[in-house]
Amino acid sequence: MNRAITKSKRVMKLGYLLPVILIFTVFNSYTSRHFFKKKMGLLEKGRRICLQLLGSRLDKGAVVRKGLFITDFGKLTLGKNSTLGPFAKLFLFEQFSVGDNVEIGSGLTVHTSEHLLNETDKPLGKQSSLRAPVSISSDVYIGSNVTILSGAQIESRVVVGACSLVKGRLESGYLYAGVPAKKIKSI
Amino acid sequence: MNRAITKSKRVMKLGYLLPVILIFTVFNSYTSRHFFKKKMGLLEKGRRICLQLLGSRLDKGAVVRKGLFITDFGKLTLGKNSTLGPFAKLFLFEQFSVGDNVEIGSGLTVHTSEHLLNETDKPLGKQSSLRAPVSISSDVYIGSNVTILSGAQIESRVVVGACSLVKGRLESGYLYAGVPAKKIKSI
Amino acid sequence: MNRAITKSKRVMKLGYLLPVILIFTVFNSYTSRHFFKKKMGLLEKGRRICLQLLGSRLDKGAVVRKGLFITDFGKLTLGKNSTLGPFAKLFLFEQFSVGDNVEIGSGLTVHTSEHLLNETDKPLGKQSSLRAPVSISSDVYIGSNVTILSGAQIESRVVVGACSLVKGRLESGYLYAGVPAKKIKSI
Repeated sequence: MNRAITKSKRVMKLGYLLPVILIFTVFNSYTSRHFFKKKMGLLEKGRRICLQLLGSRLDKGAVVRKGLFITDFGKLTLGKNSTLGPFAKLFLFEQFSVGDNVEIGSGLTVHTSEHLLNETDKPLGKQSSLRAPVSISSDVYIGSNVTILSGAQIESRVVVGACSLVKGRLESGYLYAGVPAKKIKSI
Repeated sequence: MNRAITKSKRVMKLGYLLPVILIFTVFNSYTSRHFFKKKMGLLEKGRRICLQLLGSRLDKGAVVRKGLFITDFGKLTLGKNSTLGPFAKLFLFEQFSVGDNVEIGSGLTVHTSEHLLNETDKPLGKQSSLRAPVSISSDVYIGSNVTILSGAQIESRVVVGACSLVKGRLESGYLYAGVPAKKIKSI
Repeated sequence: MNRAITKSKRVMKLGYLLPVILIFTVFNSYTSRHFFKKKMGLLEKGRRICLQLLGSRLDKGAVVRKGLFITDFGKLTLGKNSTLGPFAKLFLFEQFSVGDNVEIGSGLTVHTSEHLLNETDKPLGKQSSLRAPVSISSDVYIGSNVTILSGAQIESRVVVGACSLVKGRLESGYLYAGVPAKKIKSI
């Protein structure tokens, strides 16, 4: 009985979400010619409303650019006046939370799970995976084509150079860059 | 005469393949919300059947995630229980063969040809190109956003870190990472 | 009055451009199975004509592969017999000019603006941004998945390795590679 109710709720939820997902797909596919000019064009507003309906938390002024791929809408939090650049790929089993005034460049990849590689008797790709949230504090600037792995924590006032691979904790007040990202200088 | 027959065969083959390619395009574009939960959802099965009809060899339990780009379906071999992650880009002139129990993360790029750059009298991009197959042995784990160049051979029980660039031969039993990928430690 | 005329001109221009953009989208999405075989297939020609109508300058024999993303068609110049590889992402506020006989691999990213990070009283992502053109001279070969940042100048007869990050000036006659790209050897 309980199961039947749950299933019926799910179908109702899907019936409500599917049109929103389809509308989001349209907003997500297009961009105006000079799409960076305005912080919030019509398409940015459309994407914003759809994402909020689908369960993402976007604070005031938070912008998501086109071409977003996300496995779970409910696990994205974007703070005030933060921007998530175009063509982001978010593989979220756990929360990906971004603070205020964060600027993220194009082509971000975020993973929130990884294989542990500590069970020597199993094939590498079949070992247990660790899930851990990824957090970016406020006032952070992340360059183009950055990849962030599960459990990473980026503190406030950090710059991450383009094409970097981020693991672990990045300390406040520094520029990090490289594969893997290392401290380059204080800022 | 022979030519006419060949052409007619080709047209017939295209008439058979085109619908399959179109159906594959649909399966390739969508994903369920929690698409990693089940090893094989409906979309995974659909992709699998289409790829097999188009000439790829996928062994039992082999999974191809969404967003695959491939230049020649007939040049892909994926072993038992191996997974090719989402958004893979395979530029295949030669075979790309993957063994059993291999886990490949998102955003893989594979090239099977490169310019030789040994003819000093020609423009660099116009020099002869070398084509060579890429092979991945069994029990290998490849992180996110890895690029593999022509002729690369990854031996069994190797881990390749995220964002790595792979050239040449990677020896069994080691973790490799970096641009280009270097031996980091034994595993 | 002047404003009204400008607006009416804009609407007329959009009415002319929109169908071209839609047709380009089709050519941009598809590729023949062996799409590298012919320098210029039907799809390459279609893309070429659309791009020229939309304001890009493509010299004789210049080829643009599928999957191009570009923010401003008018800011792209591609010289004689040069090839822009598939899945290029061009974020152009300023000119991106490519000389003759240049071969660019798959997955190129080009940015022509960046945040300066010199105003310590403002959030990092909200600081003024510097816009600067990117230029690639003639006889250059650029590998797969390269990212080029604003203001970069690549001189003639340079090779850039796969997965490199390019900033500043790359001198003629050398192979550059890495994140960021460094001189590896003379060629």
